[in-house]
Amino acid sequence: MRNFTLSEIAQHNKKDDLWIIIHGKIYDLTTFLPEHPGGQKVILKCAGKDATSAFDSHHPPDMIERFLSPDVCIGQPVMEKSHEDNANIKRQQTETDEEERIQLARKNMPSIDELYNAYDFESVAKTILSDDAWGYISSGTDDEITMRENHSAYHRIWFRPRVMVDVSKIDMTTHMLGQKASLPFYITAAAFCKTAHPNGEMALTRAAGRKDIIQMIPTYASCSFKDIVRARISSNQIQWYQLYVTRDRKATQRIVEEAEAKGMKGLFVTVDTPELGRHLKEMRINNQRDDPSEMETGEGTVSVSSFFDPSLNWSDIAWLKSITKMPILLKGVTRLEDAVLSAQHGLQGVVLSNHGGRQMDFAPSTIEILPEVMGALQREGLDKNFEVYIDGGIRRGSDIFKAIALGAKGVGIGRPFLYAMACYGERGVERLIDLFQAELTMCMRLMGAPTIADIKPDMVDIRNLKDHFVANPTDYLAKYAYERMQPRGKLSKL
Amino acid sequence: MRNFTLSEIAQHNKKDDLWIIIHGKIYDLTTFLPEHPGGQKVILKCAGKDATSAFDSHHPPDMIERFLSPDVCIGQPVMEKSHEDNANIKRQQTETDEEERIQLARKNMPSIDELYNAYDFESVAKTILSDDAWGYISSGTDDEITMRENHSAYHRIWFRPRVMVDVSKIDMTTHMLGQKASLPFYITAAAFCKTAHPNGEMALTRAAGRKDIIQMIPTYASCSFKDIVRARISSNQIQWYQLYVTRDRKATQRIVEEAEAKGMKGLFVTVDTPELGRHLKEMRINNQRDDPSEMETGEGTVSVSSFFDPSLNWSDIAWLKSITKMPILLKGVTRLEDAVLSAQHGLQGVVLSNHGGRQMDFAPSTIEILPEVMGALQREGLDKNFEVYIDGGIRRGSDIFKAIALGAKGVGIGRPFLYAMACYGERGVERLIDLFQAELTMCMRLMGAPTIADIKPDMVDIRNLKDHFVANPTDYLAKYAYERMQPRGKLSKL
Amino acid sequence: MRNFTLSEIAQHNKKDDLWIIIHGKIYDLTTFLPEHPGGQKVILKCAGKDATSAFDSHHPPDMIERFLSPDVCIGQPVMEKSHEDNANIKRQQTETDEEERIQLARKNMPSIDELYNAYDFESVAKTILSDDAWGYISSGTDDEITMRENHSAYHRIWFRPRVMVDVSKIDMTTHMLGQKASLPFYITAAAFCKTAHPNGEMALTRAAGRKDIIQMIPTYASCSFKDIVRARISSNQIQWYQLYVTRDRKATQRIVEEAEAKGMKGLFVTVDTPELGRHLKEMRINNQRDDPSEMETGEGTVSVSSFFDPSLNWSDIAWLKSITKMPILLKGVTRLEDAVLSAQHGLQGVVLSNHGGRQMDFAPSTIEILPEVMGALQREGLDKNFEVYIDGGIRRGSDIFKAIALGAKGVGIGRPFLYAMACYGERGVERLIDLFQAELTMCMRLMGAPTIADIKPDMVDIRNLKDHFVANPTDYLAKYAYERMQPRGKLSKL
Amino acid sequence: MRNFTLSEIAQHNKKDDLWIIIHGKIYDLTTFLPEHPGGQKVILKCAGKDATSAFDSHHPPDMIERFLSPDVCIGQPVMEKSHEDNANIKRQQTETDEEERIQLARKNMPSIDELYNAYDFESVAKTILSDDAWGYISSGTDDEITMRENHSAYHRIWFRPRVMVDVSKIDMTTHMLGQKASLPFYITAAAFCKTAHPNGEMALTRAAGRKDIIQMIPTYASCSFKDIVRARISSNQIQWYQLYVTRDRKATQRIVEEAEAKGMKGLFVTVDTPELGRHLKEMRINNQRDDPSEMETGEGTVSVSSFFDPSLNWSDIAWLKSITKMPILLKGVTRLEDAVLSAQHGLQGVVLSNHGGRQMDFAPSTIEILPEVMGALQREGLDKNFEVYIDGGIRRGSDIFKAIALGAKGVGIGRPFLYAMACYGERGVERLIDLFQAELTMCMRLMGAPTIADIKPDMVDIRNLKDHFVANPTDYLAKYAYERMQPRGKLSKL
Repeated sequence: MRNFTLSEIAQHNKKDDLWIIIHGKIYDLTTFLPEHPGGQKVILKCAGKDATSAFDSHHPPDMIERFLSPDVCIGQPVMEKSHEDNANIKRQQTETDEEERIQLARKNMPSIDELYNAYDFESVAKTILSDDAWGYISSGTDDEITMRENHSAYHRIWFRPRVMVDVSKIDMTTHMLGQKASLPFYITAAAFCKTAHPNGEMALTRAAGRKDIIQMIPTYASCSFKDIVRARISSNQIQWYQLYVTRDRKATQRIVEEAEAKGMKGLFVTVDTPELGRHLKEMRINNQRDDPSEMETGEGTVSVSSFFDPSLNWSDIAWLKSITKMPILLKGVTRLEDAVLSAQHGLQGVVLSNHGGRQMDFAPSTIEILPEVMGALQREGLDKNFEVYIDGGIRRGSDIFKAIALGAKGVGIGRPFLYAMACYGERGVERLIDLFQAELTMCMRLMGAPTIADIKPDMVDIRNLKDHFVANPTDYLAKYAYERMQPRGKLSKL
Repeated sequence: MRNFTLSEIAQHNKKDDLWIIIHGKIYDLTTFLPEHPGGQKVILKCAGKDATSAFDSHHPPDMIERFLSPDVCIGQPVMEKSHEDNANIKRQQTETDEEERIQLARKNMPSIDELYNAYDFESVAKTILSDDAWGYISSGTDDEITMRENHSAYHRIWFRPRVMVDVSKIDMTTHMLGQKASLPFYITAAAFCKTAHPNGEMALTRAAGRKDIIQMIPTYASCSFKDIVRARISSNQIQWYQLYVTRDRKATQRIVEEAEAKGMKGLFVTVDTPELGRHLKEMRINNQRDDPSEMETGEGTVSVSSFFDPSLNWSDIAWLKSITKMPILLKGVTRLEDAVLSAQHGLQGVVLSNHGGRQMDFAPSTIEILPEVMGALQREGLDKNFEVYIDGGIRRGSDIFKAIALGAKGVGIGRPFLYAMACYGERGVERLIDLFQAELTMCMRLMGAPTIADIKPDMVDIRNLKDHFVANPTDYLAKYAYERMQPRGKLSKL
Repeated sequence: MRNFTLSEIAQHNKKDDLWIIIHGKIYDLTTFLPEHPGGQKVILKCAGKDATSAFDSHHPPDMIERFLSPDVCIGQPVMEKSHEDNANIKRQQTETDEEERIQLARKNMPSIDELYNAYDFESVAKTILSDDAWGYISSGTDDEITMRENHSAYHRIWFRPRVMVDVSKIDMTTHMLGQKASLPFYITAAAFCKTAHPNGEMALTRAAGRKDIIQMIPTYASCSFKDIVRARISSNQIQWYQLYVTRDRKATQRIVEEAEAKGMKGLFVTVDTPELGRHLKEMRINNQRDDPSEMETGEGTVSVSSFFDPSLNWSDIAWLKSITKMPILLKGVTRLEDAVLSAQHGLQGVVLSNHGGRQMDFAPSTIEILPEVMGALQREGLDKNFEVYIDGGIRRGSDIFKAIALGAKGVGIGRPFLYAMACYGERGVERLIDLFQAELTMCMRLMGAPTIADIKPDMVDIRNLKDHFVANPTDYLAKYAYERMQPRGKLSKL
Repeated sequence: MRNFTLSEIAQHNKKDDLWIIIHGKIYDLTTFLPEHPGGQKVILKCAGKDATSAFDSHHPPDMIERFLSPDVCIGQPVMEKSHEDNANIKRQQTETDEEERIQLARKNMPSIDELYNAYDFESVAKTILSDDAWGYISSGTDDEITMRENHSAYHRIWFRPRVMVDVSKIDMTTHMLGQKASLPFYITAAAFCKTAHPNGEMALTRAAGRKDIIQMIPTYASCSFKDIVRARISSNQIQWYQLYVTRDRKATQRIVEEAEAKGMKGLFVTVDTPELGRHLKEMRINNQRDDPSEMETGEGTVSVSSFFDPSLNWSDIAWLKSITKMPILLKGVTRLEDAVLSAQHGLQGVVLSNHGGRQMDFAPSTIEILPEVMGALQREGLDKNFEVYIDGGIRRGSDIFKAIALGAKGVGIGRPFLYAMACYGERGVERLIDLFQAELTMCMRLMGAPTIADIKPDMVDIRNLKDHFVANPTDYLAKYAYERMQPRGKLSKL
């Protein structure tokens, strides 16, 4: 490996000549730059410099080896006489305003047993995360309509509780992809979990293991895949693997084979991300991907360089089946026709998901399409040996109950666990699992459904599930002229 | 009875060795602890100490004898030489901040004749109750959706008033369970009424008697059953009895027999409480039941120790009928199938109730299901000799009218009377009864229905009764960019 | 007439012995007291005193002669030596806080040509009226749901504008009850207009005359009927008469005959007021009718003494027809069955009205029932020679257009003219008429309907007219946890 | 040309004798005054004075020659000895408060690359425009219900995204009126663009040319038509012409011929403006058109003098066709019957438009009627060779997608470009075009529709598109009595 001094490296700091130091190695990222899923800006900021710290906060150590060609590594940095370079490498220790804010918030954090539900964790996380991290985790695409709709659609489902049923024993065991699971929900894949907590995905693994629930591991984990696997509590702890298919099919194949080798029990291929959604809150924070005119255009044709492979289509299913024996499911389906196609292509199932509202705004909430997907599969005789999962917007035990009542085999939960982890690490994740279980227990008992099999469609009223109500524009003159009723006492005119 | 000094007693202050002094007796509550409906925390706080004051504010003096085995009483406390123990027993007289707040609020309370409707009382009660009491009375389960929906569903019912009807005389008399009642609403059962006012259930009895309306007495009254019965204004004042069936069926039988002996005219068996709902506001105040991981789990089976009997089911009806001649009704039905089953099991009726929104969130409002329950009973030919009652969310005379129009035989009102009692004691309850009567009188007159029998389904428009509207997530960018119309004057830009 | 000194009079100041001085005469109102439509409190305040000023602000000078028996006048007051009595009679000139507030508001009132629509007047009136007057005029019954619904229901009607129609000439002339009218709206009856402005109903008469629109005169006018008639601009100015039928049918007959004699062109019998609605805002201000327990009860029968005759019913129509040749219409119909009955009883029409939301809360908005009323009349073949009017909630020229499109012959407007008069007297009323005309002109032109006859049902979309949307209770935890999109700039958490 | 001194001119400053100096010429506008589309007030302010500056900010230099008879020019101003007149002509340089506010806002304007969507520009424009300009551009008619509804109706359309489609190439080219266009949206006509930016329409032309999108030129441009044409980037840049038909048909014909001669590719005849809508915000600012009683009335007939020809009707189509070979489309259709009539009259298409909500309030949103218009045309067999365009409320790439999915050939965008131009001139317009393209690209990719032809009706869910939800009036007593759930921590009572 060739040696370069820091001054030499610092000269390669332009878009068309771009070196970066990570973990003591120099990488030439000139050609990779436009492919970076996180945008060019963030790389350009570190051009010619040591980017280890920035890299570590989002990527696992093995990221580069797994996803990039070995050619990009072109040498290693060496020290010059001058001590000044050394000084430059050391990051400044001065506390920024934000760090102060966070420290104060952390000091005032409530005791973990004062948090009683998923939103409690989100409210705390909002105060203790950095702007970057909060922006990354909490944001959705465009106006965040779909992100919020995911949960609020559950409010359009009302219960029809049964009484006078013996509910002295509640049994939540179920089977997913042929494996026994003690709870009907799992931790779904979210990229770069270190953004939430330094222990990243491994903390989720340990919490999931201790509480005996399934974890789905993301392609873009911030811990190395090996470490996540190694973090299992026991050898029979179940993990699934989420897959992004990239343009480099060979690399994709390597990743799939590695997943299977390490005992992953299901392969969940994300299909809703041919391009990353536009997240306004993130953009506001760091001006990321802010120049739409950079798109190459010509002859009326717009093409965007992307790390993800936007050409992925149904004809690729055969190839996917050829490289693994794991059950394959598509993650990101929001349309009954695509669920039917998945079954017709011999897949084991789908995850109804809109990527937590991070991709296509005004994509429907997943719970809204669940009944029509189940209906379509039944009509086509495709509902045997085909499992439907769902994620997005689940925040209460009653949401889990509703999804199961409408046909979901299992329910994926993402952000809430990140928020719990951000606040209290593994303990937070475990407590949140306990809370979901407690809520679901109460729900099953009060609904008169002591086992998962007892949870039936007739227990939910979905008459308005597909109705999207947009209020008339407000008549402000009328509103302001009206004097509101006061709780008591003399009326106080505006 | 054995004697123990206070120092001796004080040593039994742990979860697995727990003594408590109440009214001069020592009780060993170690085995009862996990069964306590009010949670363990509140008992643990008093472990090894005199808990009389805390006990009295929630329980009747005869609570322990009626519900627990005599074995739990293990002795009586005796004085030691030292005066220090005496001092310890005396509660501190120092006024807390909360007490100061309450005293001030009480001083500023409006005159009782400045309160014109049920919500006026609730608004005053909010200011003068302790946090504990307000939290206990006002809270609902989970997000309190059902609790609020109970009332707001009445807003989806509109009237179709008849004019040109002779309404010079309004007659509200009706019959409930074969007894004449002068008003079509009753005070429904609420546990531990002393939380609202020191006179507790007895104040309700006296007010009900004076205004000639029916009162339903709760199993978990804070006054003794005998005292409540004794508080009747006249010997023919009508009372009903609400029953929780506990695991100890003998104790339950004793209670039922006592109720019948004391002249209760109906037995209302609560069936919506195999487990207590999770009340966030209460939890926030006293960290009650905050540890979901305490649940015993094993082999995928979750079982919760509970004072209430979660195994209660349809096969128990025969037993209930065998132990009493009182009319038996199920309280807590929210599903037409269960109303039909009740009739088929030969019961006298049901109360459509979701426990004031305290049990299952997203259980439907009771008024919403009333028409379909009546329809189902009629279709099955079960509507004769079967009476349907309703409670939850009634806050206006017009709500009472709506419920009657849709088939309710009588209407139960709970929290509003607690708030009225909290503010002004018996007088408050009486005034609120008067106000409901005044509102109902106006309503019957303006609707062209001079008697209860004249109140007909065609007088209400229920077209949207079952519709649950959840607004689209707000487009905040659009909302903030828009400049609202101003009432007058120059426009002021944001 | 007998003479009494002020001291003598002052002794008759109790409920069961109640004298009052008005315009130099002494009245014994002991028996009238419970009949007073404005409640007892307001009379009791003046018991034994000179009530001229209070009387004048709400009643016409001829009120007592017209409505009460001559026996109630029992004498006249005379002076005693002492000057003190004189001093007592003079009202105090000290400015109260309220008067100061009003003077300041009047000083800051915008120029009349800065008011551009009905709500502008209401917003100004809110600032310059006394609490009493604002409370009286602006309030509705109970929760004021129907009062607000009256206008907001118009928002559920959308237009289907026609283009490419010659609209160079707009002609608004129409016929009501056989009389030509230059505009399709009229000033409807509102009691006690002096509450809004010292010139009372006469100001409305003059403005209506000048702008050539119809005025409906209220039974309980605050100017004498003669004066209102005399205030006409020309002898052929059209006026209608609104009638309350009281228990004293002879008095009612005298009033009807007088109305006919003075040239009234229609008799509008109010049928929605067997009892006055409960107006919280008014009650808050003056504790009016605050004691519901005063109602006489007995044998389950509630009867309220009332000035209005609550026994009025369909059999009285024959009598009404026998005492006048004026066209008779019922005012206060909100149900298609009652409109059909009116036609079957040979009346000339109905006014769909809920008394501006002052009587029965949750009575439907009038515009909502207009289409079904027209449909029912057509189905029964009763739509010829039967005219349907409408009032309640009209605040825009487009509201007038909508009502006409759905079948209304004319549109009554009440409160807006009171607010306009309160602010600017007659000029205000005239300007508001102009504004309604300007808005309606624009509307007819842009809708492609140059004449009243061109306004057709297919120009409005009423698909949601009868839908009453009540939003789900808010999920506050979700709402507070969500970070709203910010217009621009960095995101600000919380 | 005759000469007049400034003192002489100053004497002609009354309604019935009104001279004005513009660009060194004196015009007698006495007869034109009531015809002025912008109202009389604004002209009267300048009566007898030099109005060049006020004129230039709203009109093109060639306005008078193009639209008025040559007779109105009656001379030219000459200097007198005194220097005082000179001084009078010079406008005062003193900065007003408003100018200060604007300068400050301009200084704090964000960098252009911090604006990420259309609403960002509107939010900035609100701060940097003068009250006059903001009021003129941003306001709608009456309560601005339709203006806001235009966008919010898009929220009632949800997507049905397809996955597993090869979307590596996105192609947005389409054809409008036979011309190839590289993007499916265009800059629609807005009068007086100099109100937003001194470069006016020419800036739009240049930005449109550079980004290769179509521009529609308004009749009432503030740049001269010649200059706008001359501003084209290339000779084949496509422009359309928007036409107001005025009473002077000869003048209209001259304008149309000129448009055709200059290469306009389409003639869009505005048909929704027989009279200008009433814009409250504008009125508030400058008391414009505030006197509705000025309308000439007589014999029940209301006629308004107007510059636009309110007699325009279907029989004029033949004349329009006779004076040009350009494709003719009606702009302002909001009713399927009128779209069908347009096709039956042999026109090339329509623009579904409600004039950005500036004309008829409660006219439906245009997107709402698009599906029924397409359906009607298909049923009548009129959908070939007939193109349907749409404008109003488009603020997102996804809005464009929705309109195309429902049948629109192209999508017009107006105000957003004015706001972008107001803030950053041409660069702002170009960036906004880029942003729309970026959003649409993402949308097409995530929807699985790589070309315009792939965008299909089944990709949108329009079930609630025509539903107009108006919430029930709020029950404020209930609302205020309820204690909201708190995110965490102790509950804080109101």
